[in-house]
Amino acid sequence: METVKYLLNEDRMPTSWYNIAADLPAPPPAVLHPGTKQPIGPDDLAPLFPMGLIMQEVSSEREIEIPDEVQSIYRQWRPSPLYRARRLEQALDTPAKIYYKYEGVSPAGSHKPNTAVAQAYYNKQEGVKRLVTETGAGQWGSSLAFAGALFGLEVLVYMVKVSYNQKPYRRALMEAYGARVVASPSTETNAGRAILAEHPDSTGSLGIAISEAVEIAAQDPDARYALGSVLNHVLLHQTVIGLESLAQLEMAGDYPDIIVGCTGGGSNFAGIAFPFIGAKLRGERDVRVVAVEPAACPSLTRGQYAYDFGDTAGMTPLVKMHTLGHGFVPSGIHAGGLRYHGMAPMVSHLLQLGQFEATNVQQLETFTAGLTFARAEGILPAPEANHAVAGAINEALRCKEAGEAKTILFNLCGHGHFDLQAYTDFQAGKLKDFEYSAEEVAMALAGLPS
Amino acid sequence: METVKYLLNEDRMPTSWYNIAADLPAPPPAVLHPGTKQPIGPDDLAPLFPMGLIMQEVSSEREIEIPDEVQSIYRQWRPSPLYRARRLEQALDTPAKIYYKYEGVSPAGSHKPNTAVAQAYYNKQEGVKRLVTETGAGQWGSSLAFAGALFGLEVLVYMVKVSYNQKPYRRALMEAYGARVVASPSTETNAGRAILAEHPDSTGSLGIAISEAVEIAAQDPDARYALGSVLNHVLLHQTVIGLESLAQLEMAGDYPDIIVGCTGGGSNFAGIAFPFIGAKLRGERDVRVVAVEPAACPSLTRGQYAYDFGDTAGMTPLVKMHTLGHGFVPSGIHAGGLRYHGMAPMVSHLLQLGQFEATNVQQLETFTAGLTFARAEGILPAPEANHAVAGAINEALRCKEAGEAKTILFNLCGHGHFDLQAYTDFQAGKLKDFEYSAEEVAMALAGLPS
Repeated sequence: METVKYLLNEDRMPTSWYNIAADLPAPPPAVLHPGTKQPIGPDDLAPLFPMGLIMQEVSSEREIEIPDEVQSIYRQWRPSPLYRARRLEQALDTPAKIYYKYEGVSPAGSHKPNTAVAQAYYNKQEGVKRLVTETGAGQWGSSLAFAGALFGLEVLVYMVKVSYNQKPYRRALMEAYGARVVASPSTETNAGRAILAEHPDSTGSLGIAISEAVEIAAQDPDARYALGSVLNHVLLHQTVIGLESLAQLEMAGDYPDIIVGCTGGGSNFAGIAFPFIGAKLRGERDVRVVAVEPAACPSLTRGQYAYDFGDTAGMTPLVKMHTLGHGFVPSGIHAGGLRYHGMAPMVSHLLQLGQFEATNVQQLETFTAGLTFARAEGILPAPEANHAVAGAINEALRCKEAGEAKTILFNLCGHGHFDLQAYTDFQAGKLKDFEYSAEEVAMALAGLPS
Repeated sequence: METVKYLLNEDRMPTSWYNIAADLPAPPPAVLHPGTKQPIGPDDLAPLFPMGLIMQEVSSEREIEIPDEVQSIYRQWRPSPLYRARRLEQALDTPAKIYYKYEGVSPAGSHKPNTAVAQAYYNKQEGVKRLVTETGAGQWGSSLAFAGALFGLEVLVYMVKVSYNQKPYRRALMEAYGARVVASPSTETNAGRAILAEHPDSTGSLGIAISEAVEIAAQDPDARYALGSVLNHVLLHQTVIGLESLAQLEMAGDYPDIIVGCTGGGSNFAGIAFPFIGAKLRGERDVRVVAVEPAACPSLTRGQYAYDFGDTAGMTPLVKMHTLGHGFVPSGIHAGGLRYHGMAPMVSHLLQLGQFEATNVQQLETFTAGLTFARAEGILPAPEANHAVAGAINEALRCKEAGEAKTILFNLCGHGHFDLQAYTDFQAGKLKDFEYSAEEVAMALAGLPS
């Protein structure tokens, strides 16, 4: 019954983000212009992002200072708690020690505000008046809406139409924070109108929504675009998770043997793992790191490491990443935040360098793990986080078999308060597993740009 | 932009609950047997509650020790944060200092687990195997389901049928914790079958659900009944809120001039206010305390101080309280947790003693206040909590008019993650205010037992 919580004093909250680029043996492959196929520079990104973020995107300094104002807002929910999952350990009867970092304490309920607040800050600093973004399941959109409200920035969210209709509560949260939410494809953009002309009943896709958001941001000098994962600066902002965990485990007199994180675009995984992988890269301390992705969207485990577009329409720069092809449409699993065809280039690069291993799990296993966790620890995880829970439980059960008292750390990146339809469907036996045939994967990969 | 948060070290978490009965100039009126109209004793309550809780119900000791195991579970989310609402102060341009205690950090999202965990503990101690309760909106049911999961107790929840159908996500949360949830009226009890025989389409009521839960608990020797508000022991468990606030304000070098809490059954109000009212009763320190209730269920402001039943069917003991009559059916406002015809007898007694004042607010004002709060502070409050937010904002605006820099403390008793339909309806202009005519109130009061 014991609760073991490690709360870091505020004066030990990190004052810098950790930039793993500083510790790489070789830099990741260049980002290429979609037309010329030549490496792009900071100026090419200026219409979309403020220079403060672009400089972080290309920086190789190890420590990047967190502005005071961002630190002050972080303090509303940070340092987030690190728990020893004693009750889960008992339920599993494992000799392993399981620790979890809990990011669901943020006002928007996930790790996303770590970067949303930083992005809003740098945009505000440079005089930007409004932020435009896209959202699928809504975690990112509601986090940016929250951050925008704090900084007095207008926020415009293109929300994939099927989610807009099926997840009215996520939309309501964004609207409560004062954001404007538009179902995508919309009649407000050329991209949206073109889709609607051809497919009047289109239910949208993340790719289309990105195209709409980018179009609006690029043509409005007072607006900029914001992305919730994949890019280096987004991963950078999330490293507060791992940095705090390091300090909290130090309080516990412990260091992880195994770190588990779920992966979609890669940002929460990077957040928990990069500071530890950095120590490994610097030869200071070894650790085994495991990325867990859905079997229904297996970019790391079944994708190809190749140049591809970040969006479905092929408008973004080309980045080298593990991808299933930008035309890949993942199955309708409930972990909406993990349904992305590619992986953050920095995460992909580290997999190529052998710095972590990747595995995938089926949807039903993740929900079973989530309920086991909820009944033992009291927190209902988001479907995305259930992938990390399942990964951690598997490692703990392996420890049981082997009789090894290893130390496992995982990132519980968000709560499931907005995902109860998924749990309802799971408990009613309505959810399914998904598995792609080799042919299906090959067909999607055939669409990679040459 | 500054965040000002007061986190209490775990070693300063209260180790005792505060029992205000010890500081009363006169005890509250006796609880009467519904048949004999004679005062009841502890043994009369034994079929429904474990003796550990009954002893707390009638105790007059000032400090009642919190069992170690309960403290350990509290530590998962306690001490809860106390915030200085700087950004709200700025938005209101008030000289007042506004502090809020935030209870939404509990796994179930409100203050209810403070008592659910304690109740589960004492039942478990006495060998009880299952807990039976009722729930309206679902905050209480999900908190007891959470506590039951931790202690390995079965939890059976009779959920008012209209909520069961309209709020499937609250039900899903209870089921995720492993509770069994039954729509009330059900065919499982005599009470339920009697109602269904007469009204096959009955959508239920809290009163009917209480009757069903009490019936099941009373006839099953391994089961006990659990109530989420109103009773002395429930209010007692909530005093951790105010005790922590006292210590946190001490850290801030401050003491409230005004305390604001919302009232339904009275438990969150008691939690924040009783430790401060106690200091006033002991002549140590003065404070103005304001209870804010919905205009649609105005027991304190428009009810009568009289003996009445706790349930609609008239099966419970008679208690002296501010009541609108046990036959009163409040309007369908979204603050479901405040829709109760009566008030905790201890809270009523303190109002009679002039220890606090009561006011009521309309629904639309509470949602406007909630959105103002969400956009300034980033946390979306539950509709119930919006009543406290509205009360605090009104006090802060009065300070602005008067040019007084008073210190206001209020209890933000829960988040609104499960209440987004209410916000959606509010933003769509679909919500209404409610006001009862004097005749309507008089008619409800005419049903009071003689």
